[in-house]
Amino acid sequence: MNIPEGQASVDRPVFMVEPWCVREPELRLDRLRQSESVFTLSNGHVGLRGNLDEGEPHGLPGTYLNSFYEQRPLPHAETAYGYPESGQTVINVTNGKVIRLLVDDEPFDVRYGRVHHHERILDMRAGTLTRNVEWTSPAGRRVEVGSVRLVSLTQRAIAAICYDVEPVDEAIRIVVQSELVANEALPGGGKDPRASAILDSPLVGEEHVANGTKVLLLHRTRESGLRMAAGMAHHIEGPESMTVDTESSEDVGRLTVATRIEPGQRLRIVKYMAYGWSSQRSRPALHDQVVGALAGARQTGWDGLLMEQRDYLDAFWEGADVEVEGDAEIQQAVRFGLFHVLQAGARAERRMIPAKGLTGPGYDGHTFWDTETFVLPVLTYTAPDAAADVLAWRHMTLPLARERARQLGLRGATFPWRTIRGHECSGYWPAGTAAFHINADIADAVVRYVDVTQDAEFEREIGLEVLVETARLWRSLGHHDVGGVFRIDGVTGPDEYSAVADNNVYTNLMARRNLQEAAETAMRHPDVAERLGVDAEEAASWRDAAAAMLIPYDQRLGVHPQSEGFTNHARWDFASTKPDHYPLLLNYPYFDLYRKQVVKQADLVLALHLCGQAFTDDQKARDFAYYEALTVRDSSLSAQTQAVIAAEVGQLELAHDYLGETSLMDLHDLNRNTGDGLHLASMAGAWNGLVAGFGGMRAGDGRLRFAPRLPGGISRLTFRMRYRGSLVRVTVTAESARYDLLDGPGVKLWHHGEPFSLGGDPVELPIAQVAASAPPTQPAGREPMPRRLDPHSRDARRRMS
Amino acid sequence: MNIPEGQASVDRPVFMVEPWCVREPELRLDRLRQSESVFTLSNGHVGLRGNLDEGEPHGLPGTYLNSFYEQRPLPHAETAYGYPESGQTVINVTNGKVIRLLVDDEPFDVRYGRVHHHERILDMRAGTLTRNVEWTSPAGRRVEVGSVRLVSLTQRAIAAICYDVEPVDEAIRIVVQSELVANEALPGGGKDPRASAILDSPLVGEEHVANGTKVLLLHRTRESGLRMAAGMAHHIEGPESMTVDTESSEDVGRLTVATRIEPGQRLRIVKYMAYGWSSQRSRPALHDQVVGALAGARQTGWDGLLMEQRDYLDAFWEGADVEVEGDAEIQQAVRFGLFHVLQAGARAERRMIPAKGLTGPGYDGHTFWDTETFVLPVLTYTAPDAAADVLAWRHMTLPLARERARQLGLRGATFPWRTIRGHECSGYWPAGTAAFHINADIADAVVRYVDVTQDAEFEREIGLEVLVETARLWRSLGHHDVGGVFRIDGVTGPDEYSAVADNNVYTNLMARRNLQEAAETAMRHPDVAERLGVDAEEAASWRDAAAAMLIPYDQRLGVHPQSEGFTNHARWDFASTKPDHYPLLLNYPYFDLYRKQVVKQADLVLALHLCGQAFTDDQKARDFAYYEALTVRDSSLSAQTQAVIAAEVGQLELAHDYLGETSLMDLHDLNRNTGDGLHLASMAGAWNGLVAGFGGMRAGDGRLRFAPRLPGGISRLTFRMRYRGSLVRVTVTAESARYDLLDGPGVKLWHHGEPFSLGGDPVELPIAQVAASAPPTQPAGREPMPRRLDPHSRDARRRMS
Repeated sequence: MNIPEGQASVDRPVFMVEPWCVREPELRLDRLRQSESVFTLSNGHVGLRGNLDEGEPHGLPGTYLNSFYEQRPLPHAETAYGYPESGQTVINVTNGKVIRLLVDDEPFDVRYGRVHHHERILDMRAGTLTRNVEWTSPAGRRVEVGSVRLVSLTQRAIAAICYDVEPVDEAIRIVVQSELVANEALPGGGKDPRASAILDSPLVGEEHVANGTKVLLLHRTRESGLRMAAGMAHHIEGPESMTVDTESSEDVGRLTVATRIEPGQRLRIVKYMAYGWSSQRSRPALHDQVVGALAGARQTGWDGLLMEQRDYLDAFWEGADVEVEGDAEIQQAVRFGLFHVLQAGARAERRMIPAKGLTGPGYDGHTFWDTETFVLPVLTYTAPDAAADVLAWRHMTLPLARERARQLGLRGATFPWRTIRGHECSGYWPAGTAAFHINADIADAVVRYVDVTQDAEFEREIGLEVLVETARLWRSLGHHDVGGVFRIDGVTGPDEYSAVADNNVYTNLMARRNLQEAAETAMRHPDVAERLGVDAEEAASWRDAAAAMLIPYDQRLGVHPQSEGFTNHARWDFASTKPDHYPLLLNYPYFDLYRKQVVKQADLVLALHLCGQAFTDDQKARDFAYYEALTVRDSSLSAQTQAVIAAEVGQLELAHDYLGETSLMDLHDLNRNTGDGLHLASMAGAWNGLVAGFGGMRAGDGRLRFAPRLPGGISRLTFRMRYRGSLVRVTVTAESARYDLLDGPGVKLWHHGEPFSLGGDPVELPIAQVAASAPPTQPAGREPMPRRLDPHSRDARRRMS
Repeated sequence: MNIPEGQASVDRPVFMVEPWCVREPELRLDRLRQSESVFTLSNGHVGLRGNLDEGEPHGLPGTYLNSFYEQRPLPHAETAYGYPESGQTVINVTNGKVIRLLVDDEPFDVRYGRVHHHERILDMRAGTLTRNVEWTSPAGRRVEVGSVRLVSLTQRAIAAICYDVEPVDEAIRIVVQSELVANEALPGGGKDPRASAILDSPLVGEEHVANGTKVLLLHRTRESGLRMAAGMAHHIEGPESMTVDTESSEDVGRLTVATRIEPGQRLRIVKYMAYGWSSQRSRPALHDQVVGALAGARQTGWDGLLMEQRDYLDAFWEGADVEVEGDAEIQQAVRFGLFHVLQAGARAERRMIPAKGLTGPGYDGHTFWDTETFVLPVLTYTAPDAAADVLAWRHMTLPLARERARQLGLRGATFPWRTIRGHECSGYWPAGTAAFHINADIADAVVRYVDVTQDAEFEREIGLEVLVETARLWRSLGHHDVGGVFRIDGVTGPDEYSAVADNNVYTNLMARRNLQEAAETAMRHPDVAERLGVDAEEAASWRDAAAAMLIPYDQRLGVHPQSEGFTNHARWDFASTKPDHYPLLLNYPYFDLYRKQVVKQADLVLALHLCGQAFTDDQKARDFAYYEALTVRDSSLSAQTQAVIAAEVGQLELAHDYLGETSLMDLHDLNRNTGDGLHLASMAGAWNGLVAGFGGMRAGDGRLRFAPRLPGGISRLTFRMRYRGSLVRVTVTAESARYDLLDGPGVKLWHHGEPFSLGGDPVELPIAQVAASAPPTQPAGREPMPRRLDPHSRDARRRMS
């Protein structure tokens, strides 16, 4: 059954479609790197890729600690002022997942002998990864191996594995080696610049101890000077005859259990792992911290950890679950997405959420604007504390952001385009530093969080300062021209196939909100504003800039240009672009992409979503159609926004298609790089596409609005959101939407533009049917994969276009 | 008298102001690196920096062969499609200048003992560098040392040194070691990205031979795989008692002469050096080539070489000399500039002319657009064969330029922004590949050369193909918008403080000419055009694009924006920019420079010069004044163009100031980087400023026009030009201009717009006086240094501004 690496079997699905689980029914060695990402367990603090217990074969071994990084040089062929000279890269830390098994001295390795059965299950309610294997060694010894793995959502330093071995036919001599391995060899990286740089042996040993069933390894990084400790402790159940030894060296800790088991007997090893790191704490302090965490976990015990895990997840799903009838893949995918978004943020605790969470080394482990724009909306409505934590982390990095603004000759704060610790790590400024919109994206996440939670303490202690410093940035970045118009020139919007353009509509609209919100929030907290040095003149200058903000519009074409002048540019020659030349950035120079009308990812269309009130319905429909014809979706960030706006403008089938693309990004490895880590924004995209798309949810200024409408392929959609202390459930069918208040005080809501009050009694409201207009077209070959394979409706759509 | 390195003595001039020589009256160790560049001897094939004979002390040793380079990697923090992965760097080849002297076993080294007299003279009529030293060794032995060095303009492989030693008071034991040294250690580079990368030991030894007084070393480069040979042969005159030995090893060849000389006796060593290199020729072939060149030089002899050199230069000066009365510094500088321009191009012979000639390793030894735009105009009118050679080299690189165009998705050919061999070596595409104007600049140089020489064979064999391939480039780079206007979006003009903008006026005007000239030239040579695949439709599409070319104009301000939208941008905050923050690129990020109105170097103003007929006189005056206020001249390329247009719009004193800046760039080391090599474009700028500026010379379409007018500080200006087989001399005074035909058939000329015929009799025409309008202002602190220190006139100008 084993398939050699590289020989993909495209027809056979890797994972089964089940509502609450992701099940791999047979081991797909050709998809190992993907499945390791999909099966990652994480709590936002520690992340373990779904590597096989025995360590190999592997696609990419991975154990990550949030914000634990190494520095590496950023070389420049021609350097210039303000270029960062070093970058930060997530590193693979001490691997505690390894449990090797010898069956009569033959190593258990799925590449040898015979695998009768191999199943892995990610259970999204239990929060566990289960593996069941039945294997016969080359010498003919048959064993059953089972493991259950968790990364605790309740004890953030802790992961644990319950590992069982049973002989099937006859007594077998078994040796189990449970290990901690530092500085694992990693497979070399490809040439794709999106993959992470590989750093060899980044950890320098400082201490190693073996004691009873406990082992601890302490290391520090060479350049970044961070210290980490990894510890393991074990609980072993097996025949009395067994022997147990532990040993340690600088990079390896090992517990060895040797025994002989009869059929019907079982060897069970519960392995508790604990991780800790710090840039400041001493070696003894870190040592004790990890040993203490292990003691706590052992006291809780394996069953206790399982129970805590399920309780935590039950509470999460209670406020977050989305039910989708009619599309089982989307049902699974939205839960999978929510599960990974939760895993990324649950215990990040004032650290960042990387673009890949802690699921892989892609993008060097950096966080980008994706987190604030796509991931935090989900967390804000389902696990708001996690959203607050990320924003608190941004707030903590304000000193660095202020310093960067000074370096760039600007006021306020400039958050980095990509970073782990808060320093700018972008090696290409036109698509890095110039993408100033990240500052408005962060500010917008602050505004959204406060709007949804009414967390006044957060607003005073964290939110206002972020708003003020970003408003100062915008005020100094833009200028009034001689006609009194406020312009923001020479910046890069979300679309990375354009750069350094004047008056990007998305950027200007988001900056306008940033300036307005800073002024309003300062007015609400005059004492804090005064401490931050904001006076009435400064706030007035923000309101003035916001009011005078230039939003370019092309009267001739009746659409908004993405940036000033964009619609004058030549259109990309899609007809001559071969299918294998996507993504374009790998096959065409930036200069060519930048100067033509071709869109990597929603930019103006993202403005239609996030700043919808700045556009009329007619403008939205025209703009969406215009940009559909130009958007190639070479970024995984795009589809969800296109889903949301397609739904808003009544293109429900198209919205469903885009929803499928964002939702299935990693389960189907659509971009062929899931192996480097999950696309966390796409994971969030399933929720955004369903809730903001088919639910038509928009919020802001204390107004929570819905405009639900389903595509033909979804018969019922149910979602829940936390909003200002209440828990609301919305159930949508083709004909109506039912609103239930599950918890908290009554709320005022909007249904297709009409306000209503939701109290103890559910409210059911009708949904008017709208005739779909002709669907917009996409560049040839870049249409989304159709969700519904009904040939009649597809053909009908094609004919209309 | 010796001044330690680094202790500059700003007040004392380094060089004497003399009409035909550059004399250093005492050795300035603090300016050694500068004087080595200034004293470089070159013929365009071989270049020897003016290092002291004895090798040290040195600023930077340098011996260069045109187009002999090594490859080095170009690292990118974030790489992308189309980025060059390796660059080309000029390397310091085998040094044949070294002649060491031992005086009673003490090495002659100006840092020890006592220097009584030290003089170096670059003689621009003789084409030699002479050095006279009188020195007493630490042990009290006094000697006179004289050397005369030349790089032959008539035998391109050959350089020679005539080295004399005489005792002053008493008999002295003398040892002279004449050497060839490969892989010299070089001082480390600074952090300034404009300085060259240093490559350690780039030469791999292949052969070394010592035979009689001859030594030959053969090497090849490690990566670029080029082979070079350096040989030396000697003629020795001295006491009969002397002994002579030669030896060689991989990296050193040495001839040693030992003798005892009495007062009144002299030891004279004439050292002949020969260089050859090839990417194709075998080791024996190269060996023989160099040995043969040495034999030829010895046959000519030292006196013969001197005579040939002077004859060559006499012929050059006859057609090129410029006489300036009233400003002795400019008089010296224009000859110095012409001499170095000649040295760079004389024997380049179908190779490029680097931005620094062969005078230093700055800019990695690359050629840029500077050569075609600023250097070739001078050569075209004074040494036209050298101009043709450079353009023939560009033509030879067309296959690479076509390949680059294909890589970028364009038709025709894209010449590299910077290169040695023809491959794109720019590590930063917004200021490299995007600066497509270089293609029009090359085409313009072709058109100019043909217009001036009427060289029909060149036009058929070389010119037309360059015009056709660049026209194809422009046609594919631009597009007609829906209104039928032809736009060239997303390119970078000459000004490097803006990048990747739409419809740069300079670029569009130059592209327009390129398209028109390609169509017209194709019509003149229908057979060649057919061979190049040009049909009537294609030529029509060029004319159509040219006719529809967008030239943006800001009606509101009544000026041309440098690029579309430029005049909407914020103006740079000059008032807050500290004087030590220039050049701005070392102190501000590109993003900030690009998005504001600040100009590094003439861009729109260069269009006023090179495409003057596209502007009215009033537009020129308004545009010039507008851009004066924005131009900081952080590029040495700028001042000459500002001089030319200042003169045209009647700002004659300002023009004189700018002329001073370009002319004295290297003699006064104005940018503090003359040590990396001379600014060849500035060297050409002295001629351009005088001839195109105060002579008002413009040519094209068979019309040679003058509009002479002198500033107060120049009482008489005389210049000569070769034009269509004639040699014309123009003598300008405040009141009139006199035109003399020195050679060739009569010509039709224009004087201040009025045509006249020049035959055997001189024509003298009056110059009308014009009242100067108020001079434009420059950014604070960026005014050019005034040429005339007459306080009254300066004050008057200041008051008017």
